[in-house]
Amino acid sequence: MKENKYDDPSFFEAYGNMTRSRKGLDGAGEWHALKQLLPNFKGKRVLDLGCGYGWHCRYAAENGAVSVVGIDLSTKMLEKAQSFTTDHRIHYQNTAIEDLEFSPERFDVVLSSLAIHYLADFDGLVKKIYQLLSLRGVFVFSVEHPVFTAYGSQDWIYDSKGNKTHWPVDNYFNEGKRKAIFLGQEVIKYHRTLDTYVNGLLSHGFTITGFVEPSPEEHMLAQDPDWKEELRRPMMLIISSTKNVKA
Amino acid sequence: MKENKYDDPSFFEAYGNMTRSRKGLDGAGEWHALKQLLPNFKGKRVLDLGCGYGWHCRYAAENGAVSVVGIDLSTKMLEKAQSFTTDHRIHYQNTAIEDLEFSPERFDVVLSSLAIHYLADFDGLVKKIYQLLSLRGVFVFSVEHPVFTAYGSQDWIYDSKGNKTHWPVDNYFNEGKRKAIFLGQEVIKYHRTLDTYVNGLLSHGFTITGFVEPSPEEHMLAQDPDWKEELRRPMMLIISSTKNVKA
Repeated sequence: MKENKYDDPSFFEAYGNMTRSRKGLDGAGEWHALKQLLPNFKGKRVLDLGCGYGWHCRYAAENGAVSVVGIDLSTKMLEKAQSFTTDHRIHYQNTAIEDLEFSPERFDVVLSSLAIHYLADFDGLVKKIYQLLSLRGVFVFSVEHPVFTAYGSQDWIYDSKGNKTHWPVDNYFNEGKRKAIFLGQEVIKYHRTLDTYVNGLLSHGFTITGFVEPSPEEHMLAQDPDWKEELRRPMMLIISSTKNVKA
Repeated sequence: MKENKYDDPSFFEAYGNMTRSRKGLDGAGEWHALKQLLPNFKGKRVLDLGCGYGWHCRYAAENGAVSVVGIDLSTKMLEKAQSFTTDHRIHYQNTAIEDLEFSPERFDVVLSSLAIHYLADFDGLVKKIYQLLSLRGVFVFSVEHPVFTAYGSQDWIYDSKGNKTHWPVDNYFNEGKRKAIFLGQEVIKYHRTLDTYVNGLLSHGFTITGFVEPSPEEHMLAQDPDWKEELRRPMMLIISSTKNVKA
């Protein structure tokens, strides 16, 4: 299923009010970790899957990419992304990640930030990405962590006083659809095991080069105690990988 | 701390009554998965860290290893292991994993089954293993999964009727000691994030070749419905890796 809540006006507005939407990359708690796994963009042809407001597309262009294509299912997102730039190296395209189609070895870097957990078929995606990357090309993506998606509700367990007692995990090996509430609306996401993410890459000829479960930095914890909660369970997973010759 | 509950007579007896102790490799729920990640042992020099009864040592020898060293902190375990074999290629040594000391490139394969979560220092261990492995040498290990170790109690959350409602996760990014009850005794284990396991390998020059969160096979579920519980949360993690030239 191609999830497109972002063209719903109230959802789009709620998304626009999130810190990560208002402040861009520095408003995203995991940016410090994702940035470490990004390659040198100089001279690179870049594809961003689920580009949203286009923050990562602009970052790639500002850091030397020769061409950047950002795809997204939401026309509203792409209008917003387009409004932020006049850089002729960046092209936005209204395409669902599932419908991805480019000629072989068309890109040197494929990025995706918090979009792939909306997709049912990870294996099929990795196969496509392998084809459209040049040899030694880089694939970096962040997703919601399997610990975060397994149970489904994406919420803590509370005691009778409303305190968060712990995070629930269940149905871990039962991969597939989960319904969660995000920005006040029911959203469909797909739970996958870590095994599926890592082996999806290995089995298609990628080498794992980085693996991060981002957690708040010291200065974030000092500035805002709410970040402490993010030390209790992993919310995201970021993996970087390189296309190799298949064994 | 060097955990050595296995020399405690009542603990040792309880361990001996576990299915995996009585039935060996086929009595271990994860053996089908671990076996897939093991290399071809033919002509290889093998080291087993925390060898216990020596099942994996004997398996390596039976599959063509030229020499096998099994180390364990427990003399009782090693006596038992020795009682099972007269194979002159297998040598048992009473050494804690922390005190591991062999000449560089002494081994071609290092194995460890469910022992490394008793160790405080994973990074130091990986560094040592890198040194004592030959180039392209293989390191395969299983540990308790971070989802299993994070909370500490290593038990489910139950409702008022005693039903298991879900598995708790908390303090995920707070690595270190956890006290759990195992075979009726308090045992100290060390929780680490997935990030620490994977990056410990990558940062020291290992390439990840396999990554499995073992779950029960169909025939196991058909034979014994109790295995179904193991589909609810990951209990173990198995990683295989290869020593490469450091970048």
